[in-house]
Amino acid sequence: MTQTRPGGRTARTRAAVLTATVDELIEAGYAGLSMESVAHRAGVHKATVYRRWGTLEGLLVDALTFFADQSVPTPDTGDIDGDLRELARSALAVLADRTGQALVRAMVSAGHHSQVAQVIRAFWADHTTMVAEIVARAVRRGELPPGTRPADVSRAIGAPLYMRLLVTAEPLDGAAADQAAAAVAAAARAGVFASS
Amino acid sequence: MTQTRPGGRTARTRAAVLTATVDELIEAGYAGLSMESVAHRAGVHKATVYRRWGTLEGLLVDALTFFADQSVPTPDTGDIDGDLRELARSALAVLADRTGQALVRAMVSAGHHSQVAQVIRAFWADHTTMVAEIVARAVRRGELPPGTRPADVSRAIGAPLYMRLLVTAEPLDGAAADQAAAAVAAAARAGVFASS
Repeated sequence: MTQTRPGGRTARTRAAVLTATVDELIEAGYAGLSMESVAHRAGVHKATVYRRWGTLEGLLVDALTFFADQSVPTPDTGDIDGDLRELARSALAVLADRTGQALVRAMVSAGHHSQVAQVIRAFWADHTTMVAEIVARAVRRGELPPGTRPADVSRAIGAPLYMRLLVTAEPLDGAAADQAAAAVAAAARAGVFASS
Repeated sequence: MTQTRPGGRTARTRAAVLTATVDELIEAGYAGLSMESVAHRAGVHKATVYRRWGTLEGLLVDALTFFADQSVPTPDTGDIDGDLRELARSALAVLADRTGQALVRAMVSAGHHSQVAQVIRAFWADHTTMVAEIVARAVRRGELPPGTRPADVSRAIGAPLYMRLLVTAEPLDGAAADQAAAAVAAAARAGVFASS
């Protein structure tokens, strides 16, 4: 028999448990998630899941970290319309994907837990930092008014897409993303997101 | 002893059970809702709740009908900016209120159930009908381009506010509502919501 490296086994267990977490979320939602069902689906002992992740929130937080770990480069297409379109397309890629959808829905359900809230805040802080770069370039090019607030732009790009996923249950397609980007661009140009 | 009119008693039981449903949602969310806890809080027999509402989705659907039954008159301030601001303020009134928040969160959690999905579709259809009136007047006044799609405007008004409630956990205040209205007005004027 080959010897199993502990690091490798630990990493494999983590991947199996977090994949099982997402599969359970896709099937049953956060309301239906249990340590038992995750352990069973992952083929590990329940005690392992409890020992390593502690709670359902602990599992969710680690799943969010694990699956959201592919960092996207900051768009730099040469104009604000193109940059916003790329950001909206990145949001769409997450929200139109079953794993992304399951994790976003779980975040909404468990957003009152402090650990989960912290992950959400960190995500939006990162997104706003990326948007700040894009906005700064657009202000320098004279495309957007000085004082345009990156946090407002950041929230506005995703809002119609999250709305379609979570509230109105409408299609998430390229046209929806492009419209979201065009709406933000128009509002930002009009100074809606600029400090008065 | 005075005789209890069956209609009156039935209505009182309904109000008690649906109020208990909302109170349970505020405390424990949809994931924590159970027929037992609702019956206990309302002071009625569990069997009554099962017989009359059948399932948790049945309870939620009736609570949505019961608490969303105050119809808002269509704004008519004389210009599109004022009308959109009133619509955004109406959305804010729901989303900044504990009952409204609990019901919206529950809708998101239970949106995959067909009865709940039907209530959501009906709500957005009504909202879009109201927006269509406002948009038609704005097009006649030359404020918005012909072909502006009411459904797109309807979704865009609420989107940043739902986003604050459900995703980013940011404050829901008058400034947020007014910014949402101004962003929609700018995008609509720029033709982002018009058929090409």
